[in-house]
This record gives sequence, C-alpha cells and structure tokens, in this order.
Amino acid sequence: MIEICYRPIGVIHSPFREIAKVPGLPITAKGVEAQIELKARFQEGLQDLEAFSHLILIYHFHLAEGKKLLIRSLWDDDEHGIFASRSTLRPNPIGISVVQLVGVEENLIFIRDCDIADGTPLLDIKPYLTEYDAHATRSQGWLKDFQKKAMKKKKN
Amino acid sequence: MIEICYRPIGVIHSPFREIAKVPGLPITAKGVEAQIELKARFQEGLQDLEAFSHLILIYHFHLAEGKKLLIRSLWDDDEHGIFASRSTLRPNPIGISVVQLVGVEENLIFIRDCDIADGTPLLDIKPYLTEYDAHATRSQGWLKDFQKKAMKKKKN
Repeated sequence: MIEICYRPIGVIHSPFREIAKVPGLPITAKGVEAQIELKARFQEGLQDLEAFSHLILIYHFHLAEGKKLLIRSLWDDDEHGIFASRSTLRPNPIGISVVQLVGVEENLIFIRDCDIADGTPLLDIKPYLTEYDAHATRSQGWLKDFQKKAMKKKKN
Repeated sequence: MIEICYRPIGVIHSPFREIAKVPGLPITAKGVEAQIELKARFQEGLQDLEAFSHLILIYHFHLAEGKKLLIRSLWDDDEHGIFASRSTLRPNPIGISVVQLVGVEENLIFIRDCDIADGTPLLDIKPYLTEYDAHATRSQGWLKDFQKKAMKKKKN
C-alpha cells in the first residue's frame, strides 16, 4: 500500500497547549493571535505573502488520539460519519484553518483567528482566494447552524 | 527530521488525464463532473455526508514535477513566493478543492466543479461549513482579480 510522506515546513505557536483548550467553534477563535515559525530555508517562499488578508493553513493534528469512522460530537446526540464531520479522529489527521494574516517578519508569520493547538506541525500555507474558496452552501446536514446550537447548549 | 506519512483514502476519477488539461481557473472547472472512489473499508465514514451541498477535498498533487520557492504563473510576468500562490510545485504538494456534492452510492461519491487531475490520491474529505470556510478577503495581493485578468489575456 502506498504511503505519502511530508515534512513539516514549520510549527504553529498558539495559546492552546492542550487539546481541550482548542476552540471548537469558529466564533471562539475570533481574534486569537498566534505565530507561525517557518523553517528558515523556506523563507524565500513567503515573497508577496503579506499582500493577502487571509491564509489557508494545512497542518497535522498531532494531538489527535486514535481514529474513528463514526464519531459523536457536542452538537447533538447521534453518531455521524467521520467524513461528514470536522473531528480530528480522521483516517488521515489533516486539519485546515483559514486565518487572518497580520504580518510577516523574516521567517515568522503573525496570524489572527487561530483555532490551532500549540506545537502543531505545519504542512502548507496557501493564499485564501474568494474565487476558489468562498462558497454559499445550500445545505450543511447535521451541522446546520451548529455554532448557534452550541452557543445555546452552552448557555443552558 | 520528522516525516508525517498518510495513506490515500481513495482516488479521484476526472476527465483530466494530463496536468496541462487540469483547469487553472475556478471558472473553467464549473460544472465538471467527477467521481471519488473511496476505499471500501472507509465507507462507514460517509454516513450523513449526502446532506451537505459542498465538500472540501484534500489530496496529493501526484503529477507535480519538482518543487520551487519562487514561481512564475500565467497571470503576470513576475516571480512570486510559492506560499503566496496555488502552484503545485510546493514543498509539500498538497492540494485542496471545494466541490459540489451530487450524490453518494456505496463507496462512490459523485461530485461537480472538479478541478482535480484523474488518478489523484485523495487524503481527506471534509464537509464545507460556511462558518469555518467562507471569508470575505480584504486583499488578494498579486492574485487580485486573477480570473478576470486571465480570461482577458486568453481573449487577446
């Protein structure tokens, strides 16, 4: 069976040292500042990055414990397929996040709205492009209004 | 140096057999139908997927030839950092695409708006969630209006 291997291009430094502290909702990551420490040998690849307002980060869920095909979440009481969820317990524990770019200084990238655990190995950085990445969904299945539902659940 | 290794969860069957045929612009992928063949042992993970209108696919750019930190593209005449571009020649050749979900039949997933090469090894499927994934950019650097610019260049 073929394996595809990558080497981290850097590491993410964030305020979230434990998996339980990582924001489970986009709204709770709002404004959270963090830093990407890119390996110095990739610094040239940052040219022109600073002119983008949003970045896509692709990274390895290094704190994920195990893998499951069916998961339960906080948002409801049912089981759901792993590919219909954003759980970290995926066959390939790859995470993606869209963050705001604050600034670049040499091999350091300052970001905002970070929902990523401290020490996370970073695999890729891409510029967020509306034409490729922004879509209006018609349906979001069991995750319809999950943020509202979760906030309501929290209050109760 | 650490390596992070993944095993493909399936393969993408699309009309694009050569890298030169893969749509370079979101607009040229519009309506393109394709199929994901998930490995049968992961089929259970598709539960509830069909209720989502859009999916994020994460995959390996298996046709990428080489790696570069500075690239040139069709959209202008300058060099740009690889992390400020969507080129396949990245340190870790990982691609992401948002596609529309048409339907699921056992381990087959039918999709639309596919800009991915035929035979691409698939690493992950996630539901596209507006709350996480849709953002209004303030600036897109050298890729501002790239689609319009590219269409104009094509006409000339």
